Amino acid sequence: MLTFASDFGSPYPAAVKGVVLSRTDARVVDVAHDLPRQSIRGAAFWLREVLPYFPPAVHLAVVDPDVGTERAAVVLRVGDHALVGPDNGALRPVARRLVTEQVGERDDPDAFVEAFEIDYVDPASTTFHGRDVFGPAAADVHEAGVHDVGSLDRVHPVETGNLVDHRLPTAAVTGDRAEGEVLVVDDFGNVITNVPGSFIEDAGVTAVTVDGERVPVERSFAAVEPGEPLATVGSHGYVECDVNQGRGDEAFGLSPGDRVVLGRERDD
Amino acid sequence: MLTFASDFGSPYPAAVKGVVLSRTDARVVDVAHDLPRQSIRGAAFWLREVLPYFPPAVHLAVVDPDVGTERAAVVLRVGDHALVGPDNGALRPVARRLVTEQVGERDDPDAFVEAFEIDYVDPASTTFHGRDVFGPAAADVHEAGVHDVGSLDRVHPVETGNLVDHRLPTAAVTGDRAEGEVLVVDDFGNVITNVPGSFIEDAGVTAVTVDGERVPVERSFAAVEPGEPLATVGSHGYVECDVNQGRGDEAFGLSPGDRVVLGRERDD
Amino acid sequence: MLTFASDFGSPYPAAVKGVVLSRTDARVVDVAHDLPRQSIRGAAFWLREVLPYFPPAVHLAVVDPDVGTERAAVVLRVGDHALVGPDNGALRPVARRLVTEQVGERDDPDAFVEAFEIDYVDPASTTFHGRDVFGPAAADVHEAGVHDVGSLDRVHPVETGNLVDHRLPTAAVTGDRAEGEVLVVDDFGNVITNVPGSFIEDAGVTAVTVDGERVPVERSFAAVEPGEPLATVGSHGYVECDVNQGRGDEAFGLSPGDRVVLGRERDD
Repeated sequence: MLTFASDFGSPYPAAVKGVVLSRTDARVVDVAHDLPRQSIRGAAFWLREVLPYFPPAVHLAVVDPDVGTERAAVVLRVGDHALVGPDNGALRPVARRLVTEQVGERDDPDAFVEAFEIDYVDPASTTFHGRDVFGPAAADVHEAGVHDVGSLDRVHPVETGNLVDHRLPTAAVTGDRAEGEVLVVDDFGNVITNVPGSFIEDAGVTAVTVDGERVPVERSFAAVEPGEPLATVGSHGYVECDVNQGRGDEAFGLSPGDRVVLGRERDD
Repeated sequence: MLTFASDFGSPYPAAVKGVVLSRTDARVVDVAHDLPRQSIRGAAFWLREVLPYFPPAVHLAVVDPDVGTERAAVVLRVGDHALVGPDNGALRPVARRLVTEQVGERDDPDAFVEAFEIDYVDPASTTFHGRDVFGPAAADVHEAGVHDVGSLDRVHPVETGNLVDHRLPTAAVTGDRAEGEVLVVDDFGNVITNVPGSFIEDAGVTAVTVDGERVPVERSFAAVEPGEPLATVGSHGYVECDVNQGRGDEAFGLSPGDRVVLGRERDD
Repeated sequence: MLTFASDFGSPYPAAVKGVVLSRTDARVVDVAHDLPRQSIRGAAFWLREVLPYFPPAVHLAVVDPDVGTERAAVVLRVGDHALVGPDNGALRPVARRLVTEQVGERDDPDAFVEAFEIDYVDPASTTFHGRDVFGPAAADVHEAGVHDVGSLDRVHPVETGNLVDHRLPTAAVTGDRAEGEVLVVDDFGNVITNVPGSFIEDAGVTAVTVDGERVPVERSFAAVEPGEPLATVGSHGYVECDVNQGRGDEAFGLSPGDRVVLGRERDD
């Protein structure tokens, strides 16, 4: 199986699929092609949250704000999964998550990520790296087999620690106060912060202030009237700032990367 | 074959597909992931109009305005098809349509729909029901076989009549007047009403009034100038209020659920 | 393999896929369903740029501004590829490109395109040609085999030269001046002209004027600051007018079909 995620919109991914299917009979599954374009953080978040649900596969994942500049093409192998894409950090959080899922919780998950660089020549400004470099590489990895990546021409092992890294920021929780950040806004306008859900899952927490504005803490959107804001724990395990049948990003005035301060209130 | 329709946008459906493909080798076909979000009616319409074109399959169809609240997960079996989703009525019209297609026109099509409930535990507020309940259930139904749904653990038969139902409204036609409703607006702005096409297919009908405004009745958009309105019979068999190379919803000021009164005019 | 490209949006393509999968077990690959709707030129461009990357396949490609009017349904065979769609010219440029790829550069590529017409009856205004005519035809071509199209009922050979043609316009280059046209704007706002990349790839070309406005010529977006315009050679081999992390169409005020005059400047 070969999954394919990108920020390519439409119809560019089809050319990549054509190239891939010219090299392999693998089942190809589209993940999404509207990943955040200018944000390694947003792309890294979605890849980490989605790809681990797949069975062992080669994951072609190309989010590339620096397209056209010099950056290596890499393969990260974790257990029976391989990730193929540019060396810009977007693949690192999902690689670590895959270590947790495949190997177990580890202090240094990066030690369980095997890394390779793919040599490529880039003579022309007309190169579309997804189509001309990453797609073929992913197909070749699939054909060689995830455990034989090293046998491919133009592929050589590198130190994982020497690759570009990206770490999703963590929130600071002190007593009833959490200082965090907006990781992403999903396409329904839900504001996904990096404050762990446990912050509001404590018994007795009935409301939080979001940058000073008080909203109820609920288990479901339907608990508030349409158009009304709420805080809830989303499916990613983080606190989300949402609006029932509306857009949380607009109601709260929050965008990806914004700092957010939450204060929890208990029902005494 | 397993089809998958939802209101999940992007990239949430990919996590569901990952879960499904971890449990079955079935061919998975995306139907659409932009079904109307807050409208059982709109979702029910599209599912009914699209799914019957597929060969026998397990249809995972999750449109879920009440996500997070208590509602059962159900399987509806009709002939060689199975529908899997929340018990909110959205699956009922397509189930009846499948009866017509698989069994034949019947006075009580619901009698030919076999229903099952899927028990699930929902301990955490972080549950994403599509990924954690409905996706696995659809994969399991596929693996068990549509005719052996009842053999699955956590699945038990229920009375179809006890499930939530939703009936698409029907229009009232009296002489040259039809009182109906807008069922959906498609993503090109075509306004699909529930007035049967036969209302304007009669020989000699050259125009209709739509809430009093007179527009020509045509067989194709191209019969009127770009930007001009028309009424036509769409591919669903209903009267549509459209604009050639434009948006009917804006020109007619009509939205899903709006009442609409048509008066037909004959060329004498 | 059967690829499927259209301007049908969502969820209409799913009904077509259902029909296709009822007739063939072929692998079905979505190309795009948001091809330009009212523009044969735009659709012809994307089909030509994308489909040749696929391995031999039946390509169902329905872009149909004249839907509902009389136009033939055609199959174009080029080597091991077959193209199925309406006879409106949109398939002709990709057919010629496939000749170049499959047969080689030829003075008269159309001579290497074998054409067939598909007879269909269209009794009802409720016909959705993608679902009711082109989809079934593509599936049948796949089942018959690309080299046995002529054996199908309702299919008869026609002269390629008698079909509707569409030729993508070519730019006129005179010295340091190119007069061209905007072919398409991609969904990131990049303005793709028909001026060949060679116009600015010459050593020493550091800037072009676009309708009089001077912008730098760069190999990558990242060479200019975010929000700044540039000219570059895109992956299609044409000059594009783009903005780093922004929309070129808005910055340059250019739309598909607009005439554009480029003047190149050399660094002496």
